[in-house]
Amino acid sequence: MTKIGIVGGTGYTGVELLRLLVGHPHVQLHAVTSRAEAGTRIADLYPNLRGHLDLSFTEPNLEQLSACDLVFFATPNGTAMQLTPDLLAAGVRVIDLAADFRLQDPHSWQKWYEIPHTCPELLSEAVYGLPEWHREAIAQARVVANPGCYPTAVQLGLLPLLSAGLVDTDSLIADAKSGVSGAGRKASVGMLMGEVGESFKAYNVHGHRHLPEICQELNRVVDRPVHLTFVPHLLPMIRGIHATLYATLVKEVSNEELQEVFTQRYADEAFIDVLPFAGHPETRSVRGTNRCQLAVHRPQQGKQLVILSVIDNLVKGAAGQAIQNMNIMLGFPEKSGLNHVGLLP
Amino acid sequence: MTKIGIVGGTGYTGVELLRLLVGHPHVQLHAVTSRAEAGTRIADLYPNLRGHLDLSFTEPNLEQLSACDLVFFATPNGTAMQLTPDLLAAGVRVIDLAADFRLQDPHSWQKWYEIPHTCPELLSEAVYGLPEWHREAIAQARVVANPGCYPTAVQLGLLPLLSAGLVDTDSLIADAKSGVSGAGRKASVGMLMGEVGESFKAYNVHGHRHLPEICQELNRVVDRPVHLTFVPHLLPMIRGIHATLYATLVKEVSNEELQEVFTQRYADEAFIDVLPFAGHPETRSVRGTNRCQLAVHRPQQGKQLVILSVIDNLVKGAAGQAIQNMNIMLGFPEKSGLNHVGLLP
Amino acid sequence: MTKIGIVGGTGYTGVELLRLLVGHPHVQLHAVTSRAEAGTRIADLYPNLRGHLDLSFTEPNLEQLSACDLVFFATPNGTAMQLTPDLLAAGVRVIDLAADFRLQDPHSWQKWYEIPHTCPELLSEAVYGLPEWHREAIAQARVVANPGCYPTAVQLGLLPLLSAGLVDTDSLIADAKSGVSGAGRKASVGMLMGEVGESFKAYNVHGHRHLPEICQELNRVVDRPVHLTFVPHLLPMIRGIHATLYATLVKEVSNEELQEVFTQRYADEAFIDVLPFAGHPETRSVRGTNRCQLAVHRPQQGKQLVILSVIDNLVKGAAGQAIQNMNIMLGFPEKSGLNHVGLLP
Amino acid sequence: MTKIGIVGGTGYTGVELLRLLVGHPHVQLHAVTSRAEAGTRIADLYPNLRGHLDLSFTEPNLEQLSACDLVFFATPNGTAMQLTPDLLAAGVRVIDLAADFRLQDPHSWQKWYEIPHTCPELLSEAVYGLPEWHREAIAQARVVANPGCYPTAVQLGLLPLLSAGLVDTDSLIADAKSGVSGAGRKASVGMLMGEVGESFKAYNVHGHRHLPEICQELNRVVDRPVHLTFVPHLLPMIRGIHATLYATLVKEVSNEELQEVFTQRYADEAFIDVLPFAGHPETRSVRGTNRCQLAVHRPQQGKQLVILSVIDNLVKGAAGQAIQNMNIMLGFPEKSGLNHVGLLP
Repeated sequence: MTKIGIVGGTGYTGVELLRLLVGHPHVQLHAVTSRAEAGTRIADLYPNLRGHLDLSFTEPNLEQLSACDLVFFATPNGTAMQLTPDLLAAGVRVIDLAADFRLQDPHSWQKWYEIPHTCPELLSEAVYGLPEWHREAIAQARVVANPGCYPTAVQLGLLPLLSAGLVDTDSLIADAKSGVSGAGRKASVGMLMGEVGESFKAYNVHGHRHLPEICQELNRVVDRPVHLTFVPHLLPMIRGIHATLYATLVKEVSNEELQEVFTQRYADEAFIDVLPFAGHPETRSVRGTNRCQLAVHRPQQGKQLVILSVIDNLVKGAAGQAIQNMNIMLGFPEKSGLNHVGLLP
Repeated sequence: MTKIGIVGGTGYTGVELLRLLVGHPHVQLHAVTSRAEAGTRIADLYPNLRGHLDLSFTEPNLEQLSACDLVFFATPNGTAMQLTPDLLAAGVRVIDLAADFRLQDPHSWQKWYEIPHTCPELLSEAVYGLPEWHREAIAQARVVANPGCYPTAVQLGLLPLLSAGLVDTDSLIADAKSGVSGAGRKASVGMLMGEVGESFKAYNVHGHRHLPEICQELNRVVDRPVHLTFVPHLLPMIRGIHATLYATLVKEVSNEELQEVFTQRYADEAFIDVLPFAGHPETRSVRGTNRCQLAVHRPQQGKQLVILSVIDNLVKGAAGQAIQNMNIMLGFPEKSGLNHVGLLP
Repeated sequence: MTKIGIVGGTGYTGVELLRLLVGHPHVQLHAVTSRAEAGTRIADLYPNLRGHLDLSFTEPNLEQLSACDLVFFATPNGTAMQLTPDLLAAGVRVIDLAADFRLQDPHSWQKWYEIPHTCPELLSEAVYGLPEWHREAIAQARVVANPGCYPTAVQLGLLPLLSAGLVDTDSLIADAKSGVSGAGRKASVGMLMGEVGESFKAYNVHGHRHLPEICQELNRVVDRPVHLTFVPHLLPMIRGIHATLYATLVKEVSNEELQEVFTQRYADEAFIDVLPFAGHPETRSVRGTNRCQLAVHRPQQGKQLVILSVIDNLVKGAAGQAIQNMNIMLGFPEKSGLNHVGLLP
Repeated sequence: MTKIGIVGGTGYTGVELLRLLVGHPHVQLHAVTSRAEAGTRIADLYPNLRGHLDLSFTEPNLEQLSACDLVFFATPNGTAMQLTPDLLAAGVRVIDLAADFRLQDPHSWQKWYEIPHTCPELLSEAVYGLPEWHREAIAQARVVANPGCYPTAVQLGLLPLLSAGLVDTDSLIADAKSGVSGAGRKASVGMLMGEVGESFKAYNVHGHRHLPEICQELNRVVDRPVHLTFVPHLLPMIRGIHATLYATLVKEVSNEELQEVFTQRYADEAFIDVLPFAGHPETRSVRGTNRCQLAVHRPQQGKQLVILSVIDNLVKGAAGQAIQNMNIMLGFPEKSGLNHVGLLP
């Protein structure tokens, strides 16, 4: 069995990796580290894992991690870049679920994440782990930067239009809404249920860290820099992202052709499900799954397109996509361990 | 005391009218009608009213309603237009919380509401009851069309920009999110908590009945028809609308000037609260109140503006605004009965 | 492959059966019937099943159902008893997820369900499908009455104490709380999110249909009729039952002995997870799984015991337990298709 | 105007005091203190108060507080006891919303709250502020211990039965469920929406700090110590407590007599609303109000009574009851500032 390590297993992406990996047919958990919980049985912290996993958290330890074939980082931003060079040197492949390797430009990284990057030389080598757009590079990668949750939902919806040259690159809008688990599992007043339950708000409208990541990736498929307005909102629910994407047509095109842009691009993708034209995807339909559901709208037959894109932020937006990347890197069938049906209702 | 009637008191706008009117210093409830619940004590259906209201629902009855000074219709679309001509003939003033008098054009009404209008001659007389923009006409009106919930949130955010001629009228976007109480209190599968709890979706993206209403009203302040893309979404919570509004600047203007467009326009408005520039209003801050909170954003200092507008859909979006209209029509202080503090948390 | 039919596949227990059965290694869905939705693709009604299931709903048809090895009824009460005799005659085995075969006494059935039973002769043959207590009879059964959701949570918590003779049978209390999916997926005002969201209440305190079922089953292990006070409540969430069970000790016993009553009784049970003494199970830990988590408390070391029992009402409380019964009846490994990890958070 | 101070105005009980006091006709806020937020405008922290309150938080300062007629402590346990002796010496009356003066026995206080009491000499003087049972003493009190939220709901339901001598004092059970705002507004992992949303659990079954408080108060009306099993649970919603109370009849009594025990005891109480026999109160009916709704049940006409008691934990369970106490202490009409209608839906 292939040996897997997880650094930082106590957060929501950590427990979600565990939920998915205990059912994976081809890998074995070798180490799950946590400084704060070292010694604690994992199933004591996460009782949903009782009977599925008989491991305890350990102190992060390079020797133990070096015995792994692949290590996931489910840590706060800035941690993976500390350990990754040594792991690579030991021949271990790395998937970082945080942001350390997402931005190619270390100055942009420092601007948005407010600490200097400690291994900028790895940024150009790291592969952006959106499999539907970078599968071949991922297969060869030593370091994969697992995309952010918002960026996943936004890119999957906009990239087909941009790569087909159908829409104006200067007036893109992503009005995105996320469940609260996207904020992670750390003590804070702002994410108390008393603060965010039964209410709704936008946040970071002036600038969210996922903006440069999205723009960097959209720019790969167009010939001049896109301008994107990205407005994140917080939903009073736990899992799910719904991105409502606005783009202006610059070419004459029928609804059928529009729909085909998506259905053809994603025809062979196991985790992208394009609904019939003008459908209304719901976050619950993909809850617990690695799937993105998309629908294309053209209200009043005008030139303003509306693309609806839903994912589970903890799965396709984090742990599931990470495992999809792992499957590609290690040569497993891409759906291994990821064939869940959405938990509806 | 002024005598008030409510036709259709069993829905959410009905019970909200009752919640607000039992605390109103200048009016007295004379009749609250319901065909289905005639004879039932109101406080038996709505136990929050126990001790505050000692009336029973009655069959709708023209004679009883004609004894009122003013009648609210909190009925499904198509009911108010049946009774309004007779009430006006009897000298009773009418505020319709449904859509019967919102559209000036009966053909548009028939197209969107799918039944012919039975008193199209009243459409031009009816006044659109958005007090901040039509206060004087409301004061004189015999029939007031109380605005829809989405249209209230959207107009309050866009009208200052449009009337100032600052933004492109051809690329307006309203990405709006509503709590489930906006769908009313009628048996349906689609609004079961099992269907809409812990999930999020857009709906009616191809065309929602509030679209023609919003466009009609925005068109009043501009010289050529606006084009608006309106995308409603359903939030897994009960009360609150959050409209995220996108408009493209067509003039050079500083952030301070932008902010002043709003603060000056609404300086004397008791129910419009403009937050500091780049604020993030939350629906909970206006829960249970007749207030709209607004904030202006200009991400990355570009030409794309983002206006955030929140209301309680049952208060400023329905019953509260109706009472505000009543206060204006009957010469009461505009805040009478409406001075609540938002229920936070 | 074994052929399976589902009668009434459009409700929450129906879609949950489908979610679980599409991943089952040993069975094949042969027919899923619905009068109301005949002809509709199942995945159009339940988009979580897109890509997992390529069937349409059909009219219920005895011939088609007779070709099945086993048929699940996920219908309203009173339907299964109409079709079951013919299916049995055709050699088809039946699992009813409704209440038709749960009560042995047809008079009690008529009293609580308000219609006469149409095949009372089958009541004594039908086996009550709580596998942890009736596994051998289930294996042989032609008709299995799948237990109610509340009865499952309550019995699994109380039966070990009663069968050990440790508690007073005359003062049992089950204070039970259920998510809204327990009420099913049918149009109603009472289960609108506007009615049941962000609120909590007890209901049917004077008498709930699950009371006679629970008492009937508890009575099997004691020598005189139990007296149980059963108070159901409605939680503002979708999935999960938490039963808080009160029983008075009648023997001297240590905490360790108490704990062992549970751990020994359930030592070989794959789906019963006894937490350490004085633990606090959460419904989310079993969300989406067929597991019951239990914990034993003895506050202030008194004689009043408190047993906490949580299940997912749609899985161990309905569809999952039905599949567990099917596995037993058809000789499959009992965990086939049921090895999910709780969706936490 | 009477001058009021609030020490610790940033928590949920603090903001709720502010919501209620800004609408109170007879008092004026003189000082609202917070060490952490000194200098911050209150309405910046709580935007629901914008336009209603033009004060900033100040450092707690004995001189400023001594100028008040009455000071509320909305602080963590252990703070009020530090400042109260000095305030009393300055002639200021005190209402503590925390637990500092609730327990008469300083050893019990130290046992449950884990710090020594610093002014045990005041414990016997302090009056327990449950107005329906101690109104006269409250009127004269210098120090009022505002009851806990659970104790309020439980006592209001059990005291009539106990004082009438109708039920066994040895087998009382309070199965209580609270919204998350009861845990206050402080950074913690355990109260994140990701942890407590869409789930349900019991907590502190082995012993909750409200247990000794409830027992102390119940013991006042009976001749031998009660034995109460108290099991608190956490509801996935923000406001509301529902106590389901179990008591065993020891006398023959009709349902009508039982109902009268409650209706007569509370006939003159503005904030206690006894529903018709066998009613089902909902927490939403009292949301935002100082009301307790109660209902009496006797399932299957047995000797086990079930009393249902609902309050808003932040109002009748905290800030509203504190203001009710203030009204009594200062000679205002008891309903001053407290005449809200429940926010339903």
